[in-house]
Parts: sequence; C-alpha cells; structure tokens
Amino acid sequence: MRELGIGLIGTGFMGRAHALAFHNAKAVFDLPLNLTLAALADADPQRARQCAQSWGFETAHSDWQRLIDDPKVQLVAITTPNHLHFPMAMAALAAGKPVYCEKPLAVSLEQAEQMRQAAKAAGVVTRVGYNYQHNPMIQRAREMIQRGELGQIISFQGEFSEDFMADPASPWSWRCEATHAGGALADLGSHLLAMARHLLGDVEAVCADSQTVHLQRPASVGNAEQRAIAVDDQVHGLLRFANGARGTVSSSWLKHGYKNHLSFEISGTLGTLAFDQERLNELRLCRAGQPGFQRLLAGPDLPGYAAFSPAAGHQLGYNELKTLEVQELVMTLAGEGGSGTDFDEAWEVERLAAAIRVAAREERWVKVSEQ
Amino acid sequence: MRELGIGLIGTGFMGRAHALAFHNAKAVFDLPLNLTLAALADADPQRARQCAQSWGFETAHSDWQRLIDDPKVQLVAITTPNHLHFPMAMAALAAGKPVYCEKPLAVSLEQAEQMRQAAKAAGVVTRVGYNYQHNPMIQRAREMIQRGELGQIISFQGEFSEDFMADPASPWSWRCEATHAGGALADLGSHLLAMARHLLGDVEAVCADSQTVHLQRPASVGNAEQRAIAVDDQVHGLLRFANGARGTVSSSWLKHGYKNHLSFEISGTLGTLAFDQERLNELRLCRAGQPGFQRLLAGPDLPGYAAFSPAAGHQLGYNELKTLEVQELVMTLAGEGGSGTDFDEAWEVERLAAAIRVAAREERWVKVSEQ
Amino acid sequence: MRELGIGLIGTGFMGRAHALAFHNAKAVFDLPLNLTLAALADADPQRARQCAQSWGFETAHSDWQRLIDDPKVQLVAITTPNHLHFPMAMAALAAGKPVYCEKPLAVSLEQAEQMRQAAKAAGVVTRVGYNYQHNPMIQRAREMIQRGELGQIISFQGEFSEDFMADPASPWSWRCEATHAGGALADLGSHLLAMARHLLGDVEAVCADSQTVHLQRPASVGNAEQRAIAVDDQVHGLLRFANGARGTVSSSWLKHGYKNHLSFEISGTLGTLAFDQERLNELRLCRAGQPGFQRLLAGPDLPGYAAFSPAAGHQLGYNELKTLEVQELVMTLAGEGGSGTDFDEAWEVERLAAAIRVAAREERWVKVSEQ
Amino acid sequence: MRELGIGLIGTGFMGRAHALAFHNAKAVFDLPLNLTLAALADADPQRARQCAQSWGFETAHSDWQRLIDDPKVQLVAITTPNHLHFPMAMAALAAGKPVYCEKPLAVSLEQAEQMRQAAKAAGVVTRVGYNYQHNPMIQRAREMIQRGELGQIISFQGEFSEDFMADPASPWSWRCEATHAGGALADLGSHLLAMARHLLGDVEAVCADSQTVHLQRPASVGNAEQRAIAVDDQVHGLLRFANGARGTVSSSWLKHGYKNHLSFEISGTLGTLAFDQERLNELRLCRAGQPGFQRLLAGPDLPGYAAFSPAAGHQLGYNELKTLEVQELVMTLAGEGGSGTDFDEAWEVERLAAAIRVAAREERWVKVSEQ
Repeated sequence: MRELGIGLIGTGFMGRAHALAFHNAKAVFDLPLNLTLAALADADPQRARQCAQSWGFETAHSDWQRLIDDPKVQLVAITTPNHLHFPMAMAALAAGKPVYCEKPLAVSLEQAEQMRQAAKAAGVVTRVGYNYQHNPMIQRAREMIQRGELGQIISFQGEFSEDFMADPASPWSWRCEATHAGGALADLGSHLLAMARHLLGDVEAVCADSQTVHLQRPASVGNAEQRAIAVDDQVHGLLRFANGARGTVSSSWLKHGYKNHLSFEISGTLGTLAFDQERLNELRLCRAGQPGFQRLLAGPDLPGYAAFSPAAGHQLGYNELKTLEVQELVMTLAGEGGSGTDFDEAWEVERLAAAIRVAAREERWVKVSEQ
Repeated sequence: MRELGIGLIGTGFMGRAHALAFHNAKAVFDLPLNLTLAALADADPQRARQCAQSWGFETAHSDWQRLIDDPKVQLVAITTPNHLHFPMAMAALAAGKPVYCEKPLAVSLEQAEQMRQAAKAAGVVTRVGYNYQHNPMIQRAREMIQRGELGQIISFQGEFSEDFMADPASPWSWRCEATHAGGALADLGSHLLAMARHLLGDVEAVCADSQTVHLQRPASVGNAEQRAIAVDDQVHGLLRFANGARGTVSSSWLKHGYKNHLSFEISGTLGTLAFDQERLNELRLCRAGQPGFQRLLAGPDLPGYAAFSPAAGHQLGYNELKTLEVQELVMTLAGEGGSGTDFDEAWEVERLAAAIRVAAREERWVKVSEQ
Repeated sequence: MRELGIGLIGTGFMGRAHALAFHNAKAVFDLPLNLTLAALADADPQRARQCAQSWGFETAHSDWQRLIDDPKVQLVAITTPNHLHFPMAMAALAAGKPVYCEKPLAVSLEQAEQMRQAAKAAGVVTRVGYNYQHNPMIQRAREMIQRGELGQIISFQGEFSEDFMADPASPWSWRCEATHAGGALADLGSHLLAMARHLLGDVEAVCADSQTVHLQRPASVGNAEQRAIAVDDQVHGLLRFANGARGTVSSSWLKHGYKNHLSFEISGTLGTLAFDQERLNELRLCRAGQPGFQRLLAGPDLPGYAAFSPAAGHQLGYNELKTLEVQELVMTLAGEGGSGTDFDEAWEVERLAAAIRVAAREERWVKVSEQ
Repeated sequence: MRELGIGLIGTGFMGRAHALAFHNAKAVFDLPLNLTLAALADADPQRARQCAQSWGFETAHSDWQRLIDDPKVQLVAITTPNHLHFPMAMAALAAGKPVYCEKPLAVSLEQAEQMRQAAKAAGVVTRVGYNYQHNPMIQRAREMIQRGELGQIISFQGEFSEDFMADPASPWSWRCEATHAGGALADLGSHLLAMARHLLGDVEAVCADSQTVHLQRPASVGNAEQRAIAVDDQVHGLLRFANGARGTVSSSWLKHGYKNHLSFEISGTLGTLAFDQERLNELRLCRAGQPGFQRLLAGPDLPGYAAFSPAAGHQLGYNELKTLEVQELVMTLAGEGGSGTDFDEAWEVERLAAAIRVAAREERWVKVSEQ
C-alpha cells in the first residue's frame, strides 16, 4: 500500500484535532493509503518537538518551509492563524504538494482567487476544513436532496448563531479584525454559506443587512482600554439559488443561549427537512402526506457512522467529523473521492460572502458573479 | 352598568367564534359593560334566524345595513368574506358606531386608507381581529421587551408557515385571488407582520423576494380544469425596524409539516426570546448570564390567563385568544384599554405588506413610508 | 327536540367551568337535546343569585336539595368540595335524576361503593368529571390501541406530577387531609389511574411505595403554626393489567418544574405512543419499521376537534376538554353515547387507588379484587 | 515519567474502542503516566498481528495468558465475550496486574463475588467499563447531587430502552442466553442500575416484574428454525435507596423508536434534573423557584469536556466517553483518582440485578442484602 506522509503545520487546538483525526481515520477506516505522521512544524522549536513526540510525528520543524520541502511529506496540512493560510498554501502548491487547509481559505477574496488559480495550475488535490459537512446526517440530507426525495427545493432558511461575543465585556481579539477574516459573517456565517452551497449548489444573487452592535470592546479581559470594532456582529440576508430556491441566512455571535446553532430548514415540494448542529446527530423530516415531523437519529445506515459505532443513537461528536473529513481526503488522494470542499469551492464560499458584504454596504441586490 | 349591544355580521366559523367569545368574555371576566347579543345578520334569512336562536342573539337580520341601523346595536362586528369588510365597516363608521372587523382590514391599501380616515373622522373605537396578539404569552413577551428585560433589541427572525396548500392538487379558492387578499403573504404573513409591529414597533424599510411555485391549481377538488395562480406561495424578506433592530421574515403555505407555525426569535443585548404558535402556551427564554434556554409554561401570573384557569400548565386554546380579544375591546370601549389593533394600526400592517410586495417586484430596498 | 334542564351545584372555579361548558357545547355541537340552564345552587343566596344572572341560569337556590327537587332540573351537576359529592349525588339518585359529579367520586371507597350501587338501582346515566380523557388526542390514542395499531400492548409507564406543593412553605389545605381525598395519589394520581384504565382496561394487581416528605406545613401562608401532614407527597407503583401489559405509575406534587405533567408511554409490539399533558395537543408515535418518533399535532381529523377549529395546529385548551365531556354526557343521555366515566368506572378507579394504598402500607403485591 | 504498558485482549468493536481510547487519552490529556501499547491478544494469530500493526501495538499474542505474563504489560484490558471475563480477570489478578474489564463483570453473581474477592486480595486497581458514567454531563449531575444543589433527593425514575429486539424476527443471539448475561435487564438494565448507584448510592430493597414477550426467535436471520427464549424482554421495578429516595426503573429492548434511551429524572426538594442519553450532551434542570426547565448544553466548564473542545455545544460522542474512562483509570493508577467503577462496585451492580430477578420471580419486595 502506498504511503502518505503527513506534514502538519500548527500545534494549537486545531493542530491537535488534525493529529487525532489522522490517527483515528487510520484506526477506524480501511484506508487505501498508509498514513504516516511524517512531520510537525511550529515556530517554537521546543513546542514543535514536544508535540511531535506526544502526538506521534517522526520529525519536528520550526521552519514551515522546511516541512513543505521535506521529501517525506506528501500532504501539507495547515492549521495556523488565518492570515498564514495564503503563504503556506502557496508554498505547498509551488512544491506540487496536496494541501489540506483549515477554513477560511484566506483573509481576502484576492488571496483566495490566487490560491484557487495556483491549485488549478498545480493540479493537486486540495481541501479546506469545512468539517461540518462531513457529518453523516448532513451527507444523508444531501443525498435526499440530490435524489429528489424532497421534490423541487423551494426554500432554504439558514442560521449560524452563537453567543460567545454577546457580553459587551468580551474583549477584542483577532476575530474582531477584518484583515484576519473576523466578524460574525466570516467566522460563523461562512460555515453556513458553505453548507448552503454543499446542499443546494450555486447562489446567483444576494441582498443583505449587517450591523456592528458593540462599537468598542476592551482590549483584553478586564482592560479599561477600549478598541474600536468595525466588523459585523450580526448579518441577515436573502439568497437566490441557481436551482430556483429562495431563502434567508442569518448569523450572529451575540445571540444569548446559542452555542453552536448552525441550523437550517429546507422546504421542497415533497417534504421539509430541518437540522440544528446543537443536536448534530438528529434530523427532523416531514415528507408529503405524513402527519408531522419525525426525528431521525444517526445510525450505522448513514455513510461513515458505522465506522464509529455499530448501533444507532450512540452519537458522534464534533471531533469525529474531522476524522470523517480526513477519510474523504485520503479517498480522494487515492482517486476514490469525493465531495469535499477544494480550493475552488472554498473560493466560491468566499465570493458569496464578499457579495453579501457588497449587498449590505450598497443596500441592493448583488449578483454573485459580479465579484 | 351601561349596556353594550353587539351586532354581529356573518355566521361562518368566524361568526360563531365571535359569538362564543362575547358570551365567554362575559362569563370569565368582570367586564365594565353589560354585553347583550342584540342582533345577528346573514344574507340568508333562515340561517340568520337559526343561528341567532342557537347562539342567543335577540334579533336576526338578512340585510346587514339594517343591523347597523338597529338602535340596540352599539358595536358592529364584521366576520364576512374579506371584500365585504370595506362597505360594512364604512357604513358602520358612517353611523358613528364602533367597529370590530376581522383581519385583513381590507383587500387593498387604498380601501384600508379610506377606512382608517373614516375611523379617525368618526372618532369611535375600532378593532381588527389579530387575535394571536392576545395570547397571554405574547403579552408577556411584549412586556419583557418594553421593560427592557432583553436590553436593546437587535434582531427579529419571524416565520409564519403552514402546509395547507403544499399539495399541488389543493384546489383554487378565494385565497388564490389577490383581489380577495389572497396569497401566503396576505393570508399568513400579515399575522406575522402585525406581530412584528406589536412587539417591536415601526418598520422603516424592507427588501423581499416572493414566488409562485404552483402556477396552476384545479378549479375545485378533483376537477380536471386548471386555473392560473398569480398570488405568492412563499415570501422571504428583510426588515429594518425604527428602533434599530434588523431581521428576517418568511411565510409559506407550502411547507410540509407545519400547521400553525407563527414563530419568532427576538435577540436583544440582554437575552433571547423564542415563540412557536404550534405550542402557544410556551416561551423559550435565555437571559444574559444563564447557561441555556428555559421553557416558560403559561400560568395565572400572565395577564388574562387566570380568568380561564387557576393553575399553570392548563393550556389556553385558540378560541380563548378570541375571548381575550373581546375583553380588550370591551375595556377600551369603557375607556380602560388597551393595546389592541385599531384601523390605524391595521393600515400600518397593510402598508408594510404593500412595501414588501413592491420590494419583491422591483428587487430593491423600499422605505415603508414610500407607500 | 327534548329539553334537558341543567341544575348546577357549586359556584367556584369548577362551577363556572361547568356553566361555560354547557353553554359552549350547545353552541359548537349539534346536540340531540336542547340544554337549558335551569337552576344554580350555592349556600350563599346572594352569590347564587349573582352567578345565576351572570352565567345565564333561570333560577337560583341556596338549598341544594331544592335544586334537586326542582322539576325543571333533569341533570344534577355537582362541583362542590369532595366530601359533599356523596350526599348530593345520593340525593339526586334518590330523586331518579342523572348525575354529573366532579372527580373524585367520593372521599372513601365505602362511599364510592354505595354511590355506584345507588346509581345501578336508579338506572340513570352518571358521569364523573375525568375531563382529560375527552382530549381528542387521548381519544385517538385509545382508538389506535383498540384497533390494534400498536399490536399487543406490553408496557405502560405513566406519571402525573406537578410542583404546587414542592415548597415546604406551601401551606396545609384540605388537599392535605385524607378524609377529603387529599394526597398526591388521590389528587393527581387518580387522574393517571383513570387514564390507564381508559386506555388499557382493568388492572389486576399492584405493588407500590409512597412517602410523605414534608411532615408538617404552615397552617396557612406565612403562619408560624405548623400542622402535621399524613397524606402522601409522592407515590411509585407497579401495575399488572388484565390484558398482560405491565407498567409503572408515579405521582408527585413535589416535582419542581412540572405544572400539569400527566404523561405516559405505551409500548406495543407494533409501536410506541407517548403523551404529555403539558402539550395536550400532541402525541409522539413510532410505528414498527419507522426510523424514529413523529409528532402528531391535533387537527380536525380527530373526534371532537373540528367543532372548535377547522384547521390543525390551532390548539384546544383545558376548558374545551370540559365542553367535550359535556357533549359526551348529552349524547349518552340521548341514547347515543359514549365512553365517559360513570359511577361504576369511577368506583373502579377508587378501588385501584385503594389497592395501591394497601400495597404501599403492607409492602406487598395486592390483587385489586381484594378490595 | 513512569511507563504504563497496556495489554489488550480482544479485537472486536470494543477492542478497537479501547485501542482508540488509550491513544486519544494520551493525546488530549496531560497524563501522569506514559502509556505504551505493549501487547494485543486475539485467538486468531493473523488477526492479532494485523490489528496490532494497524492500531499501533508493539506485540501480538494468540494466547491471552502470554499477554498477561508479558512483563511489558502493566494493565490488562479485557474486551472479549462476557463468559471470558472471569477466567481472564482472575488470571490477571493472580499475576498481580491491574484489570480493566468490559461490563458486565461476569455472567453470574457467584463469579462476580470471586472476582471482587480476588481483586481485594490482589490489592490492585480494577475498573469495569461502565463508560456512560464518564459523560461530563453525568459527572456534573453527580456533583450537583453530592453538593446538595437539588436538596434532599426523593425520587429517581430511570429507564434504559432500545428497540433492537422489537421485531420478533430479530434472531436469537448470545444476548438471549442467561448464561451469557443476556436479557434486557442484564444487557441494558445493568447500565441503568450502575447509573442509579453512581448518582444516588446504595439501594436497599427492590420489587419488580419482568416478562418474556417473544417466547421464540429464529435461530439466525431468516432461519425457519425457532429457538425458545427464556430471558426477559422487559422489566419494571421499584427501588428504595439507602438515602431515603424511592423510584422506578424500566428496561426494554422491545420499545419501538428508542435507540439509546438511558434516561432518568431525579427529583429533590430543591430541584429536578433530567437526562436522556439519546442527547448525551444535554441536561434539563429546574431549580426551586425557577419558572421552568432549562436546557444545559455540555461545554468546557464541565470536568473533562475542555480536553476535547474549547467551545460549548460542540458535542462529545460515545467514543469520547471511553477516552474519559481511560483517563480516570490512568489517574487512579497514578494515585490521583477517581470515581470509576471497580470490581467491588460492579459486584454491587450485579447483586442489585440479582435482587431484581428474585423479586420478580418471587413476587415480593427483596432486600438487596439478602443476595
């Protein structure tokens, strides 16, 4: 079996999530490639060494370019802060190596455009970490839609809200800077837009409204110094899909009570489907002719679930979605994929978000193709 | 105690609902006026007589103008088809009598404008039957908002969807004619717009999208003849409230699984509040600092509830909202009201709906004051 | 159409509920008898007169025996405190008049036994106010069971819990006296036992455990004087039904958070059915072969619902269950009934409760037929 | 840091779950011992080798005794069929090695008794895989109870039901044999009993009822040959806890619609707490004085959660409960534990189940200490 040497850049929470996902994908799936944890990079050499040992990587680098150049590395995984995605991914593509980059693809649409062009030119597999799409329940929803089980899709109502910035005393962070892809739309809403596209395809036009509610925040926890905030706290929009469906999207990080409320309802001529990521192992479904909604619990009949549990109702967790993402990537690298989000698709998500920003700023309907 | 003679026009489902509501309001509340069921009118003299006897009215008329002229009638209640609201209400106002008209106020904004002017000129109490607002849970929600318990309101997401037209074989009816105030926006959405205004006040601008999904329907059940349909099956919109809140509205009569899904979530800087009329005795609330949503069940601490039941959790039904509506009307007639929807407010609802139609047709943001 | 003169004893909350139910039943149903509100009795003559006028009764009595003797009264409705049910019902039966008595039938099994014998001897229709059974959703559940839609019934798990006595400072009341049919089992649990019998039929044997948690309570609100409490605060039991099903019952008035939690789950070889009276317009159902539970919302397809609303999802309230109870009674009086609870069935409920008390006291399985 | 060599016996679903849990515990926690995957045993030498390589074990054995004797093995983990737990655990204890055995401890109370005596004699750490207890939400529930946040606990109502045997065509398996710890009580109910003890402590007396509904099943899927079934399909019982609380337990593998319905409600004088394992990241809680239940979503404030995710609402899955179980075991081995289930506690669970069986058979209350 062919080897696939993993080179992972970044040792934060998401770096560890990748390390676990690579390991667990190997253990729970019969993968067509033999994954090896070849190299780990962190700017801090000591941390790089420590994490490499603890997570099972063979080599540690403090210079990420050396990881990319390492001949044992056949896949470059990027989990660093958002503004570093661009240089790292471009370097990996220049080296002709497949790239697995955390979301968002980039911190500007211009960067994203260069990245997708570079990926096209390199001709390698790319992936961006929109791991929520790998939830087996989401895959089932997508299948239902594609098979026509819901009939013609006429409406999508989506929301991704949390409350981690609801307290005006929650301090400034990089998430409050547009140049780091901050704001509710970029941070949360992009997951929702990616999901909308994953389920229903292209969006043709948008109209939107967005607001900054708390115009300043403490520079750090308890700090008397206030920093001005320019990014959006909430956004509401209208979408027109190429398939004729219409809908709404909302995203807020100020909505008390919500912790992971990526939710949607999809209305079709043959049924309604609803999902809320705060209960990620469930779908609510009402087919035409049925008296009411039924609750579906994830089980081994779903794609991917059986690898983790032989019995329904034994819920998958957030981290296992990452393992499923790695599996899809490996299958694709082996020529057997896949519906994962590549750079081209991630650019589409960025372009859609950009169109929403323009629509909000100019208070008009905007064609996505204008961007 | 002063007498209040009720004159009721119409003997359909809504006519009976009014008759019951007048009786029950008298029995459950200590009203400041002595209600008497003075006269009932229906174009069919036999039905008028029959219903008058069965529902306890003193007189029956087949000519509604005679009911209006009847000196025993001090309040004219109108429950006839939508296109008759205008002539009947105008006649009652011309006679200087208070009017209690079912929603919608009229079948065009022009009619609505004349009606509110006539009401203003007549200087009498008017009410329009947006009975969902009289739900004690809604009154509690409104109080919470007005007292600032949710802080500054920043977002409203509302929906009113049902599925009674979801089957393309559901036949044409007057609800499919714009000239009878048909379509999902007028039939269902107007309740939602009225609710949004009841809770958050004026809307300044709107943007919207609407669709007719099923372009023809059978002329009647099982009829091979098809009629062309021009009214909207679904609408989605963005709202900007005068108080600074932003939001979305959606309405559909094609959404499988929903029967009475007038729902909203209101996000404020101090909490989130959610309601779904399919569970009309419940609110979900999360205040700032609380770990999650709590469910509130209607109980005798709510305005109006105690008249019906001394114990919490013994749910009120749809018909009791009508009884509460009558109570508010009677209190207002006695000079002790009231937050009910008068012709002026009902015109505002119609104007808002008209703005949404323009916004959808012209694909642009529309100021409500343009209408 | 034959007249049915109603004589109502008692003017408390339940008296008014009866008065409304008689009126509304007449308005919403095509009844085979012509109901007239003949007479109202209350020991206080002024209150009797006042309520008679306000509720529309022709005559007022301060002596309930005179109401029973009133030739215009053809049905005696009893809504007085529990210990008065016995003398009033016995007098009405002695006069050969049908009786509609609030639950519980009596304050001792001995009284109940005399009452059912007297009813049998009188040969008149009797009814006891277990109005929760008249919920159309419950009628649907019963039909499903009787038609075999759930297959062989194998398990019943029932609970009726509220929290109105959860605070140890909630004062003593007649509900705390066994001689007034007090205690959680008698006050709440009897509804659950009646429901279990209504749905699944006879219970053959029981085992149970009961407790008084708060052994004394203030004599009245804020009173420093404490009274000893002997009745049960909670009870748990096992049931063996004659049809082979087994199950559990629980009842408590100390359970924080519950307001009207009469709930059950019924498991059959072909499906599971669940109900919670805090959402009285809903059932949860999973049939064999279905992937999960579906929610059924009450609608006009249910027996009784359509009289109140032509559309699904427009919930019935607690008071309308009373109207439905009156309808069943009137139909039965006209010879067209009915599955209502008569004195014989109410005695069965009392006997079952008595068996549970013995089982708890003697710590053993008890055959219901022992009582 | 001291090494801890893991020896794992069994390569089925549960063997893999252990392998993953050991790996992931090392990656997500700062453990005080250095875990090494020393040896894996399976009777099939080829499978042993294959799994060892794929899961990262250093050595493979086809004879489990050799694994126990392997000096590199300092902890013996047993994931084989139930009837093998006894000989393997006894051998490991004889070798003076800590044991981590899957539930149930044994297939008879006699075996369980020998095992706990052997553990006591050996003086080593033992653990049994009741992993549901390691759910951070359950740990939070336990803390709340122990800190008195719910006041005096007065009631426990527990259920563990699934539907995997609901179809009478579901074939015979070892789960249908009492000698393999089969039946709904042993297979599912033991989890519930362990949970009840984990949360509320000792049970003093029980009364119960159990039934075999389907008296025969196909020998295998689609097989015309039927085998007689003697184990219980469902059980209902009453519990008396040593702390004074009373309650009910139910377990069934015939209950349509349930997949993992280990649920409980605990009523205390200061609050009610509810849990359903089909939503394992949630608790419902109503404290005295609060108007209704609130939903708590798991988050990093809970013990153990933060190791997996820094944000609330990013649910843990079933497999992560196993990782948490391993963490507790390792902490205990390092002298820093722990509330895990050791052989003594697992024997208590078995004794409680045995008491329930006697109570059902002899139709009487049974003191647990009789067993």
